[in-house]
Amino acid sequence: MLEAIKHPKDIKKFNKDETAALAEEIRNTILSTVSQTGGHLASNLGIVELTIALHQVFDSPNDKIIFDVGHQCYPHKLLTGRYEQFNTLRQMNGISGFTNRFESNHDVASEGHCGASISVALGIAEANKILNNSNYTIAVVGDGALTNGMIYEALNNATNREVNLIVVINDNEMSISKNVGGLHRYLSNIRLSRKYFQFKRSFENFLLKIPGIGEYLAKKCKGLKDFFKKIFLKNNIFEDLGFVYLGPVDGHDIERTKLVLEEAKSKNTCCIVHALTKKGKGYDKAEDTPEKYHSVGKFSLSDGVMLSDKKTYSDYVGELICENAKNDRRICAITAAMCDGTGLTPFSQAFPSRFFDVGIAEEHAITFASGLSLNGMIPVVFLYSTFAQRSYDQFLHDIAIQKTPLVLMLDRAGIVPNDGITHQGIFDYSLISNIPNVKIYAPENFAELKSTFEFVIDENDFSVIRYPKGYENDYLKTYDMNYTSDRNIQFSNACDAAEIVILTYGRTTKVVSQIVNNHKNVSFGIIKLIRIFPLSEAEICPLIKAAKVIVVIDEGIKEGGVGEKITALLHNKTDAKILSYSINGFIEHGDVDELIDKYAFSEKQIWEDLRKLSCNY
Amino acid sequence: MLEAIKHPKDIKKFNKDETAALAEEIRNTILSTVSQTGGHLASNLGIVELTIALHQVFDSPNDKIIFDVGHQCYPHKLLTGRYEQFNTLRQMNGISGFTNRFESNHDVASEGHCGASISVALGIAEANKILNNSNYTIAVVGDGALTNGMIYEALNNATNREVNLIVVINDNEMSISKNVGGLHRYLSNIRLSRKYFQFKRSFENFLLKIPGIGEYLAKKCKGLKDFFKKIFLKNNIFEDLGFVYLGPVDGHDIERTKLVLEEAKSKNTCCIVHALTKKGKGYDKAEDTPEKYHSVGKFSLSDGVMLSDKKTYSDYVGELICENAKNDRRICAITAAMCDGTGLTPFSQAFPSRFFDVGIAEEHAITFASGLSLNGMIPVVFLYSTFAQRSYDQFLHDIAIQKTPLVLMLDRAGIVPNDGITHQGIFDYSLISNIPNVKIYAPENFAELKSTFEFVIDENDFSVIRYPKGYENDYLKTYDMNYTSDRNIQFSNACDAAEIVILTYGRTTKVVSQIVNNHKNVSFGIIKLIRIFPLSEAEICPLIKAAKVIVVIDEGIKEGGVGEKITALLHNKTDAKILSYSINGFIEHGDVDELIDKYAFSEKQIWEDLRKLSCNY
Repeated sequence: MLEAIKHPKDIKKFNKDETAALAEEIRNTILSTVSQTGGHLASNLGIVELTIALHQVFDSPNDKIIFDVGHQCYPHKLLTGRYEQFNTLRQMNGISGFTNRFESNHDVASEGHCGASISVALGIAEANKILNNSNYTIAVVGDGALTNGMIYEALNNATNREVNLIVVINDNEMSISKNVGGLHRYLSNIRLSRKYFQFKRSFENFLLKIPGIGEYLAKKCKGLKDFFKKIFLKNNIFEDLGFVYLGPVDGHDIERTKLVLEEAKSKNTCCIVHALTKKGKGYDKAEDTPEKYHSVGKFSLSDGVMLSDKKTYSDYVGELICENAKNDRRICAITAAMCDGTGLTPFSQAFPSRFFDVGIAEEHAITFASGLSLNGMIPVVFLYSTFAQRSYDQFLHDIAIQKTPLVLMLDRAGIVPNDGITHQGIFDYSLISNIPNVKIYAPENFAELKSTFEFVIDENDFSVIRYPKGYENDYLKTYDMNYTSDRNIQFSNACDAAEIVILTYGRTTKVVSQIVNNHKNVSFGIIKLIRIFPLSEAEICPLIKAAKVIVVIDEGIKEGGVGEKITALLHNKTDAKILSYSINGFIEHGDVDELIDKYAFSEKQIWEDLRKLSCNY
Repeated sequence: MLEAIKHPKDIKKFNKDETAALAEEIRNTILSTVSQTGGHLASNLGIVELTIALHQVFDSPNDKIIFDVGHQCYPHKLLTGRYEQFNTLRQMNGISGFTNRFESNHDVASEGHCGASISVALGIAEANKILNNSNYTIAVVGDGALTNGMIYEALNNATNREVNLIVVINDNEMSISKNVGGLHRYLSNIRLSRKYFQFKRSFENFLLKIPGIGEYLAKKCKGLKDFFKKIFLKNNIFEDLGFVYLGPVDGHDIERTKLVLEEAKSKNTCCIVHALTKKGKGYDKAEDTPEKYHSVGKFSLSDGVMLSDKKTYSDYVGELICENAKNDRRICAITAAMCDGTGLTPFSQAFPSRFFDVGIAEEHAITFASGLSLNGMIPVVFLYSTFAQRSYDQFLHDIAIQKTPLVLMLDRAGIVPNDGITHQGIFDYSLISNIPNVKIYAPENFAELKSTFEFVIDENDFSVIRYPKGYENDYLKTYDMNYTSDRNIQFSNACDAAEIVILTYGRTTKVVSQIVNNHKNVSFGIIKLIRIFPLSEAEICPLIKAAKVIVVIDEGIKEGGVGEKITALLHNKTDAKILSYSINGFIEHGDVDELIDKYAFSEKQIWEDLRKLSCNY
């Protein structure tokens, strides 16, 4: 039936049997597609019925439904006219794995970072009020997102505002990893409280007594309201904050969920609807280990086996910190709800007293680390580059100003393939390099990663090590390379005599090796930076003295990036022409090589630019 | 008696009369000093007794007391050996107006940005636990800070941790402006609840019956515990989150406050102590209008009159938005608890339905604005430059990626005088200019501010206007200046023929006018940027064609700053030598001119550098 659904209004009149069949079809479509394309599995399996209920009760796109985060939007995509493109999920030029407002008018915003939904929704709702528009705005928030500070800022601001805002808490007892913190425990208490079961029982009886929901809704509306009043939990934390709280409701029961959502519609103030769901629902392997099936690559549907198990940078840094922590009892590891993703599971098991998962709370993570550091520990914080954007002020105010040592491990730095525009790790260098006294390293391979990690642990300063998503990279290993004295720069022996010097770092050594291998008649020098900030004039200048052309290849945003800094650094120091390649805007989803080629630079283009400068090549 | 207090242990044995006298002396010292030096008045008057109680009960610096934010630390400074330097408060080379860990070992961290305290405290407490150290860590948090997301992230993480962490909520019903949000209303309910008064009454009776607190504490410890159990508010929001909650207690009653703090010490888990205080306590003018006396310049102690009332940039932008909002009903103003500070009081009164004070919640402020924008409004967000550092990810993720228009008004941009290191507005340019498609403007005077504001409102894009703390600046008004075609650049007519071209923007035109006025024999060209990002090669290059030296004067951090960008931009475009002046690290407190001279550039130094380049001058 999905093929025929072009718009959510097409499912408005579906009866209970039809929605059940629809849910099954959605679930099967997600399973068969994601096992081929990779993507976010467990969260989407868990939200199927809730999404159907939302689209039956509300009127998208006039009512605005916002998912926090957008990776739980697959059922929503399938119900809003994107079934036919669904097999292009997360592929180059295909549909996004997150909501994307340029993909469909049913996607309100492109939501990739946790905690933004209620803020956006409140803004839309307040504007509706100013404009005398009575449409609803609905934020669908995973319970994991409730560890996030921005969610709280928005909730605190939304309370008692007389706007048509409904916050649906999709409570599956998980964020990406197992959930943490006080509010989580509080939700568990609600979940386990008798009131929930009373509600279930009385609801059962209630349903048995009436011939049809529609008829009852029409005729006995007052009775229904009284009934709902009874199921409100009194003295609830959300009510203390000033919200109308409705729930908990079984989010896999479409009919019940619709009733609660209808009740929320009848209020003219901010409501919270608390829906209980199961992450991975309907696929037993994902139900059993939802963190494993949160975000997956290709996998075998029949036995759930992942098709790649090569060691990633994340795996490797997880090993590294374990090794080092054995001998240095000051080393602590901190993650913001990304224990698995950042490779910390072995550390969390081996050193539980020195492991801290602080929730989806990147700001707090850094300042908490500052406190550990003030008291003599060596905090090592593991964040995805894109989420570290949340922590700039903490790096500046709580680390740099306090001069408290910190090792920041930036995972998923550089271009990130399939998650796309909201998850690119291309801004961290420009962001962090303006903080006084920071040092930034970009090792290319495991050996450099190890020596850099051990060096910065030893140095005990504010140091950042960035590494990409994926597998080890060692394209330059066949070249005869040396290091400058203090190991910041690796360079080919030809460097100081070469007419063309190529300067790069990290993963893009692949492009360099292609250029150099394909043009063996040209004398290239190669400079590969390991410490990419600060850049050392004294180390770089002697290596480029003969160069007529300097090529900088920088897998990061142009403004404030390595290329711009090298260019400024070399002003008045060389007559060489500088060709600087970097990234000049946002990047969508796709394969890394495809994305670099499309949005950044290619061997072909660089070589053509070089040829234009000289007829010799 | 303050003169004799060199260490908090000196007040440990003070009896009730002595602490009362001490409180009065502290209050008088603060009033007489701050009326001369300027500073944070009302918050410090409100925390006198609470600080005395803290230092009597805890053992600083072994126990760590952290103030959120540090501007409520004056009584703490007076009790920790800084009485003699207190008259140098906020002056160049004097003591800081905030806590500063390099000033005293009683200042745990340099706390200038709201919401960091509990994170730091939890880090210290967790490290203490790892190190088997039983000392206490105390975070003293204003109730205004409870609107901040990072506080929530830390609270959520701290709950149920078995560490010696005590969070004291200093509840004066205010942040800097009147407080907002759900949790604030909740605290009001506690404050007004019968239980508080019951507590007061029974406590009164209790005190009457015993000869001395010390004796009672020693002999009847169990009775006291029972008593305290009774005063706990049950079903309290903090208890729901898993904290032990103690209070509320009258924070101006030193003896009672000490009892509650002692009780908190006896737990081995995170406790919350809720103390009620009055902002401005003891100075009736500050009690009546605490927001006016939150942060003051010099004022007359006898009648409370402020000694300066010249129109500031903040006042002027407040007028500007009112003017524009009259004719354009889409314009909304958003502030993060800085209604007064950013000049929005007139707007809040004239357009209450389009005015949003979201609390100390800079992240939410931007994403909320994105929601307004998605629904057709024109949000204008007013933030201090230093606090906008909190919102980088929101600028990128919720504004730039969504392509939602936003006007960001950055107040206190550039060097900020007396608040010092944690409040400098020197990072915003490097921070924000790496976000795709943003535009940044730095008008010099009110006329440029007006035309820029009206231009960006009209353009309806992501635009940032930055302006300094203080009064209008129009040093270049005597020069014969023109604009480039699209008004991004103002330049002197001599520009395209001049040997020396000076390029600057905003306030530092003062330094430029000094150089030019003092060396009338030299032919200078002046380029004053209004739009400082993106920089236009097409507009700048023709203006520097004859230049042998280009001087860039940039009141911002060097890395990723205007000087670095100009230098990179002009590579291979000019043979001129570029002298680039900017800021290369953190900046303390003092007078703006003194600070520019010490940390950035001076007319004298620039002229000397120019003379070295040419014997002609």
